[in-house]
Amino acid sequence: MRIHFAVFLSILPLFMINIESGAQTPTHIVAQEDTRSAVEQVLRRQQAAWNRHDLEGFMAGYRNSPELTFFSGAKEADGWQAALERYHAAYSSPGREMGKLEFSGLRIETLGPSAAFVRGVWQLTMPDGKTPHGLFTLVFRRFPDGWKIVHDHTSAAE
Amino acid sequence: MRIHFAVFLSILPLFMINIESGAQTPTHIVAQEDTRSAVEQVLRRQQAAWNRHDLEGFMAGYRNSPELTFFSGAKEADGWQAALERYHAAYSSPGREMGKLEFSGLRIETLGPSAAFVRGVWQLTMPDGKTPHGLFTLVFRRFPDGWKIVHDHTSAAE
Repeated sequence: MRIHFAVFLSILPLFMINIESGAQTPTHIVAQEDTRSAVEQVLRRQQAAWNRHDLEGFMAGYRNSPELTFFSGAKEADGWQAALERYHAAYSSPGREMGKLEFSGLRIETLGPSAAFVRGVWQLTMPDGKTPHGLFTLVFRRFPDGWKIVHDHTSAAE
Repeated sequence: MRIHFAVFLSILPLFMINIESGAQTPTHIVAQEDTRSAVEQVLRRQQAAWNRHDLEGFMAGYRNSPELTFFSGAKEADGWQAALERYHAAYSSPGREMGKLEFSGLRIETLGPSAAFVRGVWQLTMPDGKTPHGLFTLVFRRFPDGWKIVHDHTSAAE
């Protein structure tokens, strides 16, 4: 019995290789495309939410957790709720403008079945014509309710 | 035969679960610890290389590829060779100082069997007493020759 089990274990990888190579569609490539498409949708929804002044909708792209992290300059900010409040204070209090947000140059790279990261460019076009802009790195993980950003590193032109 | 194969496939996951849960050491936790330890070693080696003015040693932590990316402010720089030349120009040409580099607050998170990312703090202590510092996000992938940084987003105190 012990020998049979060992034989079973030793042929396991062969079976798995055959299953993969024999499949009509290369499963891992389809999965990567699915991931990229799902992650891009999160970002497009964030952009659309921002541009209709819906901060809660924008924040839906982030993991709702105290473990969520934001890096900017030499400053770290943690947690979903704090981020929402910070965005409200910075962009939607009286006299503040949100401007029009645009993401571009998105490069979405899968890092496994439940992780991906995104390199991209952000730009705000403000009512006074100013265009603050810069780069971002986002780490995504897949949760039961979908792909969410777990870490955001954003930097701006000096 | 087709049915037997289907039965084999359907019990496959059960076997795999049993193998995992029956093992004396939870394999995935060991793997995560191995990853964290390997990734931390890359960073410790980079720090040591920098502090002995060995830029090639420092760059050994990065994937030697034109696809390697560096984000800083609103600027993107691509490629291993270009990065090495940039570091040489900025830190080891006549009249330039490399200072003492220290990484701290490292949080290494595995993202799958061959990917991880690191959140951390960097600080240089320069001969004139200045201490430029900031945050970094690094994405690591595992290659045949070990864990390498494929993307570096670094920001500094303004």
